[in-house]
Amino acid sequence: MSILTVGTMAFDTIETPYGRVEKVIGGACTYISWAASYWCNNINLVSIVGDDFPESEVNQLQNRGVSMDGLVRIPGKKSFYWSGRYHHDMNGRDTLTTDLNVLADFNPILPDAYKSSQYIMLGNLTPDIQLSVLDQLTTKPKLVVLDTMNFWMDIALEKLMEVIAKVDVLTINDEEARQLSGERSLVKAAAKIHSFGPRFLIIKKGEHGALLFHDDKIFFAPGLPVADVIDPTGAGDSFAGGMVGYLARTDDISFQNMKTAIIYGSTMASFCVEDFSLSRLRSLSQNEIHTRIRQFESMSTYDVRELDIIS
Amino acid sequence: MSILTVGTMAFDTIETPYGRVEKVIGGACTYISWAASYWCNNINLVSIVGDDFPESEVNQLQNRGVSMDGLVRIPGKKSFYWSGRYHHDMNGRDTLTTDLNVLADFNPILPDAYKSSQYIMLGNLTPDIQLSVLDQLTTKPKLVVLDTMNFWMDIALEKLMEVIAKVDVLTINDEEARQLSGERSLVKAAAKIHSFGPRFLIIKKGEHGALLFHDDKIFFAPGLPVADVIDPTGAGDSFAGGMVGYLARTDDISFQNMKTAIIYGSTMASFCVEDFSLSRLRSLSQNEIHTRIRQFESMSTYDVRELDIIS
Repeated sequence: MSILTVGTMAFDTIETPYGRVEKVIGGACTYISWAASYWCNNINLVSIVGDDFPESEVNQLQNRGVSMDGLVRIPGKKSFYWSGRYHHDMNGRDTLTTDLNVLADFNPILPDAYKSSQYIMLGNLTPDIQLSVLDQLTTKPKLVVLDTMNFWMDIALEKLMEVIAKVDVLTINDEEARQLSGERSLVKAAAKIHSFGPRFLIIKKGEHGALLFHDDKIFFAPGLPVADVIDPTGAGDSFAGGMVGYLARTDDISFQNMKTAIIYGSTMASFCVEDFSLSRLRSLSQNEIHTRIRQFESMSTYDVRELDIIS
Repeated sequence: MSILTVGTMAFDTIETPYGRVEKVIGGACTYISWAASYWCNNINLVSIVGDDFPESEVNQLQNRGVSMDGLVRIPGKKSFYWSGRYHHDMNGRDTLTTDLNVLADFNPILPDAYKSSQYIMLGNLTPDIQLSVLDQLTTKPKLVVLDTMNFWMDIALEKLMEVIAKVDVLTINDEEARQLSGERSLVKAAAKIHSFGPRFLIIKKGEHGALLFHDDKIFFAPGLPVADVIDPTGAGDSFAGGMVGYLARTDDISFQNMKTAIIYGSTMASFCVEDFSLSRLRSLSQNEIHTRIRQFESMSTYDVRELDIIS
């Protein structure tokens, strides 16, 4: 099956307790595409860069089955740039710089071949752009996944709600789920968010794992305790990419298969954070990935025993 | 098998976003004993109260197989009293009052019949008292579980390390594990804490579940998303009680069985938070408990699939 992914391709300058890297490759669409490319070689990328973005990066993705027909390159302009510093505990970060550059004028036009993509992954971007991409599809996709964040809830809630109404899966963190729903309890937040449109709600909790809500069913995917989290940047996008890649490969959007997809997403995210930028995601072996999938399995498997209580 | 549990029996005044209750029954030992009593009816309790503590509470526990030979009642004195207010998100709380009262002079003397108890549950207390209890045992217990907190790390670290060196299982939260080990990564923290003595480290993460570390193995128990967390007080003690109760009942301290024990602990904690004080823990039916154990199972079960990667 084919994937369509829209999002940023960017340069990041990142400081974590483990070090600092300057102007490395980043962006939601880049992480999503790399993570998905291990499972699907029919990926339609929609993004925008300046003429400073390295051709070699574009070529590498192309070699992994990512179509670049939807990549716009603006001569004489710079690519989106973000710099940030992670706190000591890695759970928070401060944004130091956000230079929109080419992103300020991003108005994606889908190539015709993209318009019948089956799995749609909307990376974190302005709701306007996400909506415009959905509106250009000519056939109903099998699944639309939306990633967004509190920033858009704060400044563009109405437009965001329009997008949310059109998607099957929403991925946000726990605080964002509470903000969006106005409910403190995640169970109640999920019920409310289902009523907004998405049949599936995925709550990403970083090192604490992820929760999947669907109807009245819940799945709790563990977070893999990693010896050293070097750089959390892109973890959420790697999660989304791994999940959508697996879903497009297996072409099964049952709740049962969504659960396994979340383990695939968690697996790709666990690699992502082990090094700066995309370093870990560029050269994973089948053995590394299968070993990690088995680690997730052993981490959540136990013997269920029902004992008579003493009453 | 027999359990020995030492800890507070107290009055609590608690304020949460759901309401306020005044001078209700609380205390680590009370929660531990109630939660354990569903699985084990041979519990040796060690605690201290004033003459204000209701006899009916003592009788109810006695009727559930809890020996009160180790309960000291001090005439003319008051029981330990704590009051606190939970933050809106329920993850933090402020202590408003701590009146030690009888606890200031607590120097437990174990009845002879207690000295060969097999499963020891040291509730959160001064390390001196925990150590004194261990020193009075005349036969080597099968398993010693220690619950403690950052407060003792701050003011009595040396004594606490003496206790930690003598226990098999340590239960703390993630920040406490980082503080105790000086390691940011929980994987490294666990390795360091193993070197202090405990073969098992359980990291309690509240709504995010619990982690069990043993050698190089990890188990991640999900947290059950509860529709309304009414009062988190006693959740950690209910967890400990459910876990130790299950272990004493099954008398199997393998890693495999410890994993199931943690699910039993999580189950009891999930009931605890559904109402103020011990209200939920007093009258659970077998059907309610088994249903919840099955909820935990369905929440963490998925199909493991290993797909060939695209390289």
